[in-house]
Amino acid sequence: MTVADQRSAVLVVGSLGLDTLKTPFGEARDILGGTTSYFSLAARIYTDVRVVAVVGRDFPQDYRDLLQRGTVDLRGLQVMEGKTFRWSGQYRFDMNVAETLDTQLNVFADFHPDLPEDYRRTQYVFLANIHPALQLEVLEQVDTPKLVVADSMNLWIDTTRSTLTEVLRRSDIVLLNDGEVRQYAGTPNLIAGGRAILDLGPRAVVIKKGEHGALLISRDDGVFVAPAYPQEEVRDPTGAGDSFAGGFIGYLASRDDASPDAIRRAIIHGCAVASFTVEDFGVRRLADVTREQVMERYSTFRSLTTFVDEQVTEDVKVGG
Amino acid sequence: MTVADQRSAVLVVGSLGLDTLKTPFGEARDILGGTTSYFSLAARIYTDVRVVAVVGRDFPQDYRDLLQRGTVDLRGLQVMEGKTFRWSGQYRFDMNVAETLDTQLNVFADFHPDLPEDYRRTQYVFLANIHPALQLEVLEQVDTPKLVVADSMNLWIDTTRSTLTEVLRRSDIVLLNDGEVRQYAGTPNLIAGGRAILDLGPRAVVIKKGEHGALLISRDDGVFVAPAYPQEEVRDPTGAGDSFAGGFIGYLASRDDASPDAIRRAIIHGCAVASFTVEDFGVRRLADVTREQVMERYSTFRSLTTFVDEQVTEDVKVGG
Repeated sequence: MTVADQRSAVLVVGSLGLDTLKTPFGEARDILGGTTSYFSLAARIYTDVRVVAVVGRDFPQDYRDLLQRGTVDLRGLQVMEGKTFRWSGQYRFDMNVAETLDTQLNVFADFHPDLPEDYRRTQYVFLANIHPALQLEVLEQVDTPKLVVADSMNLWIDTTRSTLTEVLRRSDIVLLNDGEVRQYAGTPNLIAGGRAILDLGPRAVVIKKGEHGALLISRDDGVFVAPAYPQEEVRDPTGAGDSFAGGFIGYLASRDDASPDAIRRAIIHGCAVASFTVEDFGVRRLADVTREQVMERYSTFRSLTTFVDEQVTEDVKVGG
Repeated sequence: MTVADQRSAVLVVGSLGLDTLKTPFGEARDILGGTTSYFSLAARIYTDVRVVAVVGRDFPQDYRDLLQRGTVDLRGLQVMEGKTFRWSGQYRFDMNVAETLDTQLNVFADFHPDLPEDYRRTQYVFLANIHPALQLEVLEQVDTPKLVVADSMNLWIDTTRSTLTEVLRRSDIVLLNDGEVRQYAGTPNLIAGGRAILDLGPRAVVIKKGEHGALLISRDDGVFVAPAYPQEEVRDPTGAGDSFAGGFIGYLASRDDASPDAIRRAIIHGCAVASFTVEDFGVRRLADVTREQVMERYSTFRSLTTFVDEQVTEDVKVGG
């Protein structure tokens, strides 16, 4: 059996589009964006990626070429008459919060996922942030995957809560940011919010906290806290969450292992990959990251949280 | 030499007052508050505490008795004609941010620290959040302490920046919350902000991040990230930062050790102690915490951030 035969592939269904961004560090116009771009370029560091998404006729061939690098399979990419999904946003002083300036759904408004036959047996599935009804359509098309991970956003919590709840119920791992967990669970407390989501059925909730790292709340494994990589210069936080998801699920699929220990490691992989993404605009940095660079950064995460216990011999000094 | 002879004491100079608080979990009126209360009750778990502060004639004897428990020395407490400092605040949905409703300085307006003779040789000094000019007055009165830790707040960054800068320059460790670091350093990035403060002279900056734990940025020891204890119910976050400071400096003094390894452990002690404080209003929970309870919580922190490396034999499975 060859190396490639032993790893599982990842399926991602989500948005693909063109972003126009402004941060305190600069601007970029009509660059490659959407959840599947960041996810795919992160996950391909670990394993084969199968994409289901939609673009218009105006989607640049260069971007398609960039995505198809390595092990990203675009046979599930629909090309429709019309314009590609566009998002425009800006980050002010607090780089943790994106302010949406404009959203043009374009061909994405009529999108329905349609999985190529061989995609349907993919064992690791990422339901990126799209309308929960479309996420359910994906679940109808896959055969007993080993792991389903679902993301979402504030819009669907507001407008489509019951369908979203059905998605969360049917997922193994829920991936949300801190604001979304607070909003969905109606509590300011992330631990309580995470546990409320666990009560719906998932094995685990992974809460993305931007510069504060990530938090795992797991049915089998309690709480795990991963720091963010300490970076002095974050130029563009767009796609950090989807890059995290790509590193996270890509790693699990590459090992075909979703055990508690593997999930903790996968979170560190997700943080490591995302830390490259934010170093430059769009996918510019992410697209060039190597497995070796990610592993080097992964290994620095351990030192960030290590503290050594006192020598037992010191204990005689202690008063009570 | 007895156990008590081997540990160092801690000196704290700061506010002492009466708080009126409102959180989503309830209200409390004229309860024991101020930075020195929380600091002292936290640090006394570890070592002897010497307090310098001021109260008015109306300061209840019960509160004085509560503070004097164990190893807290109140000989430096000034009692002046007039009313005790009062602060009133509330926490809304986001329990991380206190909204000040009212501040009455009262006798605190005319406070000048005056250290009893034997306080002046204290080796571990905490300059709690008071006017930077008063913090400098304390530094004039102490003999070559081994470790000076300074706190501050947004008000002094706005109004007394140059004096505050002098305090930071003369401190070994600067303790600020995330918002204060961003404000002082003029950058949204905490790592960059922390390093800017290191450039002034301190050995280390410890950034308190509330529910996101604490971040150490150290000249000798790089970056260390401590999680917050995962709590489902935070009833009142008041005093968490000062309890952290008490656990942090109290631990270092109890070991008479400010090495990088001790500082990492001390941060975990600070997080552990603070996690009790927020479980109930004011000092209610903190006042009863035992050393054993803190140690039990301390030991759970390790599991929060531990991830085990893959077996080397697994590596053959990996594609790149």
